[in-house]
Amino acid sequence: MDELEIDVVAEVDLDDPVLIEGLPGVGHVGKLAVDHVLEELEAESALVRRVYSREFPPQVSIEEGVSELTCTEIYAVSVPEGRDLLLLTGDHQAQTNGGHYVLTDAFLDIAEEFGASELYALGGVPTGELIDEYAVVGAVNHESLLEPLEDAGVEFREDEPAGGIVGVSGLLLGLGERRGFDAACLMGETSGYLVDPKSARAVLEVLEALLEFELDYESLDERAGEMEDVIGKIQEMEQQQQQQQMDVPTDDDLRYIG
Amino acid sequence: MDELEIDVVAEVDLDDPVLIEGLPGVGHVGKLAVDHVLEELEAESALVRRVYSREFPPQVSIEEGVSELTCTEIYAVSVPEGRDLLLLTGDHQAQTNGGHYVLTDAFLDIAEEFGASELYALGGVPTGELIDEYAVVGAVNHESLLEPLEDAGVEFREDEPAGGIVGVSGLLLGLGERRGFDAACLMGETSGYLVDPKSARAVLEVLEALLEFELDYESLDERAGEMEDVIGKIQEMEQQQQQQQMDVPTDDDLRYIG
Amino acid sequence: MDELEIDVVAEVDLDDPVLIEGLPGVGHVGKLAVDHVLEELEAESALVRRVYSREFPPQVSIEEGVSELTCTEIYAVSVPEGRDLLLLTGDHQAQTNGGHYVLTDAFLDIAEEFGASELYALGGVPTGELIDEYAVVGAVNHESLLEPLEDAGVEFREDEPAGGIVGVSGLLLGLGERRGFDAACLMGETSGYLVDPKSARAVLEVLEALLEFELDYESLDERAGEMEDVIGKIQEMEQQQQQQQMDVPTDDDLRYIG
Amino acid sequence: MDELEIDVVAEVDLDDPVLIEGLPGVGHVGKLAVDHVLEELEAESALVRRVYSREFPPQVSIEEGVSELTCTEIYAVSVPEGRDLLLLTGDHQAQTNGGHYVLTDAFLDIAEEFGASELYALGGVPTGELIDEYAVVGAVNHESLLEPLEDAGVEFREDEPAGGIVGVSGLLLGLGERRGFDAACLMGETSGYLVDPKSARAVLEVLEALLEFELDYESLDERAGEMEDVIGKIQEMEQQQQQQQMDVPTDDDLRYIG
Repeated sequence: MDELEIDVVAEVDLDDPVLIEGLPGVGHVGKLAVDHVLEELEAESALVRRVYSREFPPQVSIEEGVSELTCTEIYAVSVPEGRDLLLLTGDHQAQTNGGHYVLTDAFLDIAEEFGASELYALGGVPTGELIDEYAVVGAVNHESLLEPLEDAGVEFREDEPAGGIVGVSGLLLGLGERRGFDAACLMGETSGYLVDPKSARAVLEVLEALLEFELDYESLDERAGEMEDVIGKIQEMEQQQQQQQMDVPTDDDLRYIG
Repeated sequence: MDELEIDVVAEVDLDDPVLIEGLPGVGHVGKLAVDHVLEELEAESALVRRVYSREFPPQVSIEEGVSELTCTEIYAVSVPEGRDLLLLTGDHQAQTNGGHYVLTDAFLDIAEEFGASELYALGGVPTGELIDEYAVVGAVNHESLLEPLEDAGVEFREDEPAGGIVGVSGLLLGLGERRGFDAACLMGETSGYLVDPKSARAVLEVLEALLEFELDYESLDERAGEMEDVIGKIQEMEQQQQQQQMDVPTDDDLRYIG
Repeated sequence: MDELEIDVVAEVDLDDPVLIEGLPGVGHVGKLAVDHVLEELEAESALVRRVYSREFPPQVSIEEGVSELTCTEIYAVSVPEGRDLLLLTGDHQAQTNGGHYVLTDAFLDIAEEFGASELYALGGVPTGELIDEYAVVGAVNHESLLEPLEDAGVEFREDEPAGGIVGVSGLLLGLGERRGFDAACLMGETSGYLVDPKSARAVLEVLEALLEFELDYESLDERAGEMEDVIGKIQEMEQQQQQQQMDVPTDDDLRYIG
Repeated sequence: MDELEIDVVAEVDLDDPVLIEGLPGVGHVGKLAVDHVLEELEAESALVRRVYSREFPPQVSIEEGVSELTCTEIYAVSVPEGRDLLLLTGDHQAQTNGGHYVLTDAFLDIAEEFGASELYALGGVPTGELIDEYAVVGAVNHESLLEPLEDAGVEFREDEPAGGIVGVSGLLLGLGERRGFDAACLMGETSGYLVDPKSARAVLEVLEALLEFELDYESLDERAGEMEDVIGKIQEMEQQQQQQQMDVPTDDDLRYIG
């Protein structure tokens, strides 16, 4: 395994596509969002690239007994009524600081191959508490990109995200800027405790406005409903066990829920 | 010391051998299993390769006052009545994420040198508690391999192993798939607290069925008996000291027991 | 992104300049000091270099909604009445041990390009408690440099800094010595708990004496005043809440204060 | 700074010298021992090499206000009545696993340059408690070396050192074996809590027998006396403060004592 191995799975002609990144992060908002688009636009999608790397965790995931080596997948989506898309999804980010740079450059290489010069990195911004309203906070890599996003309902706040944006999402903006990409990061507010389908929906509604496609949200809303049941039960248990320590559900617990 | 140094210790002609990996992991199941095969088939075995690497921990083990630099050993076994074997054993895994990829590729290189195209990675899957029945849970890198293993008694479970398979065992499946190997991981159930000879035996019984060799289990059963004595004593002490904190025996303690 | 990418932003002719380093460290003393010089001598300053690297944390900072990739900036300052300066500032240090060596060599390369052969690394030495008097402790990379600094009021103490000097400041002295630079590290005493503008002022007053420039300290003194208000409030709260645990303000809290 | 930079400080002709390593480790036994030999044989010693590396911690130590970049020093000692020596001393070991391999190979390169083919790695083996008798435990990289060491009073124990020998000392045996060196590790028993001059003396007395030089031990005995005063005071304080938590002195505290 070299530092990077990119499998060419298929070739698809796209017209000025937009790269949309949804790797795991806060509340898994970005991942949920991109996976939902893939689900809804399955008929127009094709897996085009798989990226393997020594920079990914050395492991395989198992699905129905069959292993799959850690990788990031890129799908080409020819959207009939809107912008063409390149969707970037996976279960893991790089495991070292330098690895994030290596992988982000690889993703930008692939984006250039397909003629993309715009990108959206999707993620979550943690509020630290359960919320009812889901704003979408933004960051861009050039100030000319601020206004169109504000028009689409994205909020730009002085103190958020605190500490900047870390990982692939941040580097897609930073390295993207050096390589001529117009890039924005859209972050749905989320508690940070749970996988959050409502936050993912808020982010997708902004994208719909910007990229002119339409999505059905039934399956995401179903998951949101399940999430609310879980939250309700947790709150009940908390009240019953005020003296006992209550662990916040871990990502592993939530994998079975969400 | 280069990234990899492979010592050619001997050359042996094998006929379509199967690589069997037994590096340390959960319950030391894989290591116990492979070391037992080596013990039982000593007359038919020859050490063929030693793999040294900067990726191994920088240390030597001491045996009767004499040092041995950390390495992985490969033995060629010409099994008269069954499949020829390449046995991979050692005391340590790589110490970095990238190191696991480097070492696994080296093991596959050696396997290809000897004409192998099939492999079994042996390990344990932790149950978190002491058990009486020892199922063997499986994962494969191609779905065509599911049925023969199911016929041999291997169980394929939806939620296990949780989080996939990490380390050399997982990468032997993942990188093996990219390099044309048919690979399976056999994981004996084990508490995860102890070196577990019974779990190793369960895994070996599956291998015997698949690879048509026969093993005597007397020495493994002896160790299992010693393990049960230890467990019995621990349970007694736990009952006596219910108010005191009871440390689970560490791997270091168990080195003297097992 | 290569190991190092140095953007040439502008070219400026300097006359035997002195490199002054102010990367984040104890009490952010060095950073505050260099940022203050940049503010005061803005009219004579020009950004000449930006250093990007895989060795920096993989993140972007956000300012008014627009991202900026982690980097170190070098400014050329043509000081009318004193020594020309090369100011080195940034928000992050390297994230690995080897990375510190790589980046420090890059900074020395740039210094050589501009004809510099002297440098000052600015930082803080923690006292562990709030103080009223601010001594400046020193270290040099050649003993011939001791006397001029002592004459300028720098103190050389046997046991300080305990454990030597770690990171870019230390390596500017160590690697600087091997590459022919006269280098000194000036460390203002500081509690270590807070961003400390008074400590930064103490260090700058020594530099003014050595490099013959003059600075106005109004804005630094304002920040020092704000810091004293904060300290006063914290001490009040401590007295009120003697039974409760009092967290020392973190760097993040202080970012909003200082 | 490259991965390795070796400064040639002087050239000295030695006759079949023995390399003796004393880098920091358990109880600083090896370092104390080698530094004592350097002190006692100062007239016959010359600094021949300094080894710098990105693998060392990125820091400088300060002595009388002047900085020194982290390095390992090699001294050539022409011992009139005994074997010639190459003494290896320093304040730090490598900071990564791979770094230990890189540095040990560099030390063996230098040893070969000077015609050495034998080496002793000096260290401590922790007993976990204060002791009165100081045995010297050994390990060798070839069994032919066992007898001469046993004759010199070295003990070879089955279970010690538990877990093998980690770091440069272990690799000098392991890599030394692959490169044709006869190597032994001599480890003085020590509590592991303190810098231990008595343990260093025990190790040196074995070396004296093996290498036919003679040392005066007055300064080491003085330090041992100081250490006993410190231990006495600590034991008094422990008795007085049975209810209070007593921190074991850290290496930093001991730097001022020892």
